[in-house]
Amino acid sequence: MPEPALTDDTVAARVSERLSELVTTQRRLSLAYPESFQQLWAAIENSVAQGKKLRPRLLADTHTLLGGTAHDAVVDAACAMELLHVAFLMHDDVIDKDQFRRGEMNVSGRFASNAALRGASPESARDWGESSSILAGNLLLTLAHSLLARLQVPDAVRVAVLDVFDDAVTASAAGEQSDVWLSLHLETASAYDVVSLIENKTSAYSFQAPLKIAALLAGAPDEVCAQLDVLGRHLGVIYQLRDDILGVFGDENVTGKSALSDLREGKETLLISFARAHASWPKVEHLLGRADLSQSGAAQLRSVIEASGSRRLVESVIADRCEHARDLIDAAEIPDGLKQRLNSTILDGNARAA
Amino acid sequence: MPEPALTDDTVAARVSERLSELVTTQRRLSLAYPESFQQLWAAIENSVAQGKKLRPRLLADTHTLLGGTAHDAVVDAACAMELLHVAFLMHDDVIDKDQFRRGEMNVSGRFASNAALRGASPESARDWGESSSILAGNLLLTLAHSLLARLQVPDAVRVAVLDVFDDAVTASAAGEQSDVWLSLHLETASAYDVVSLIENKTSAYSFQAPLKIAALLAGAPDEVCAQLDVLGRHLGVIYQLRDDILGVFGDENVTGKSALSDLREGKETLLISFARAHASWPKVEHLLGRADLSQSGAAQLRSVIEASGSRRLVESVIADRCEHARDLIDAAEIPDGLKQRLNSTILDGNARAA
Repeated sequence: MPEPALTDDTVAARVSERLSELVTTQRRLSLAYPESFQQLWAAIENSVAQGKKLRPRLLADTHTLLGGTAHDAVVDAACAMELLHVAFLMHDDVIDKDQFRRGEMNVSGRFASNAALRGASPESARDWGESSSILAGNLLLTLAHSLLARLQVPDAVRVAVLDVFDDAVTASAAGEQSDVWLSLHLETASAYDVVSLIENKTSAYSFQAPLKIAALLAGAPDEVCAQLDVLGRHLGVIYQLRDDILGVFGDENVTGKSALSDLREGKETLLISFARAHASWPKVEHLLGRADLSQSGAAQLRSVIEASGSRRLVESVIADRCEHARDLIDAAEIPDGLKQRLNSTILDGNARAA
Repeated sequence: MPEPALTDDTVAARVSERLSELVTTQRRLSLAYPESFQQLWAAIENSVAQGKKLRPRLLADTHTLLGGTAHDAVVDAACAMELLHVAFLMHDDVIDKDQFRRGEMNVSGRFASNAALRGASPESARDWGESSSILAGNLLLTLAHSLLARLQVPDAVRVAVLDVFDDAVTASAAGEQSDVWLSLHLETASAYDVVSLIENKTSAYSFQAPLKIAALLAGAPDEVCAQLDVLGRHLGVIYQLRDDILGVFGDENVTGKSALSDLREGKETLLISFARAHASWPKVEHLLGRADLSQSGAAQLRSVIEASGSRRLVESVIADRCEHARDLIDAAEIPDGLKQRLNSTILDGNARAA
């Protein structure tokens, strides 16, 4: 008799348990290496324990609701998606020179402050923090690959899962690179460029890959995989556009991240892209991307973004995408339980601290 | 009838062909992404085409000389080792802030200079170059994992190969992290620390992993795997100590790398570690690790390293390790052809441009 379908909470608990087991094993192995490497795994453990585990939940729930029975493989695949996510955060923090994440010091910040306490110059301390964060990301990327390469499922399924994962890594790298490039403002980005960036950087690994891997592990028909793929693209855009609004207008106490950092990094979000068309933009343009942007400078930028109608425009793009996503869910050949679950994903206001 | 054993040149040619095929496929896929991502793959192609392919050659030769017949799997495994190597170089260059490699601009350097030409500030241009190099390293790390995860060999062999590979990534990360830490000079490194660093950073992935993976694919007994593992550790130390001498005393025209960069980075090599004991060291210590070290400053450092007897001491450590390695090769239960091949590895003076 097959095991009964797992409830959301059971799977989520098994994913957390497995993640903690995986990291504990690595911490034990790190004892063979210098102290700083042991500290690196301790910092990784802390990063992995945080977060809402959106991607593993989406993957595990989708598998369950499609009637899948690959109960062990799905937990490992869900863990791989979370490890990939944390790896990306660590590298993104280096690229963005962020020392904080979710209101706490991140790997770069912790290692930098530790070295500074031991007498390193500010510059050396920062380099040490960033080097450690690059290496931590590589270790987690390797651990994610390692789990998927060992999935105990038929060969053809494992290879199909690996294909989805590898493609998601490629798309995310392309998206992250565009994000950095557009933040240099050496060329004017179209709204199309910005949305493509989001689809590559966010949709591919955060929504499309979890949905498709769940479908593959559940043995769903190709048709369903294809439908979930298109839906995942929209869900990622909805999620990211909401996140961009929170990144500029959100309450820091709720989001856990400074409402200055996107503006200081000069992120070319859709919010900015639309605001550029407004007559008052040239008056505030010089403030965007200033590492020393003050609260009052940020307030000026926010007021132009608001006055330009850009915020309302982005909100209407989100509403359109939501409607389209609901239609796709409605038309998809998937069980009603999964339709409800996916509809709830759309309803969810996303807090910044994902 | 099994295929005849491949000659060195045939395998090397097949590895180069396969690497070029893999990268070409990725370049084709990159056409779906923005121009900068296409340029990233073009730069990756250039990096992958360079180099002496030491690791794939060692892996492929060892497999052949052990009588292995996994002809396709060995080519893919050899490619994975080379892709891992290039991925590490790209991340190391970011960590060391190097813009050149093998006498040419590396990924960071190319992307930075391109952005500068398009009007980016020097700082933004450098950040863009470094971000691109981090992402390029991740793409190659993923491609390496991807090849091994798909090896067409029995499950148990594939998992054993994956274990060796993952352990090598862990060891290299630990070694690289130590390298950065010791270069901060916040604590005094012992010769033992420095040699451990080399074993982790160089031996594990450059020698031990290729030898062990070759043995696994050839179906060699566990005993042989264990013997090659110990031998690989020594070969890595010999290789790296020679490289450290070349990095300070080598001819730039031969090595393709500045004979200033190790000194400018303040690398805590065995050469430095021994020289610290000498009475004249305090007079030159302030020169080590200066990013603006001049040719005459470097000459002063070199002359103290020479006068301290450190260079001769390192050379004698190399000679001891060589003797020990020859004894290990002699005692190993491996065919004579492989003994000759491994002995030639020891004889090889290694040029810097590996």
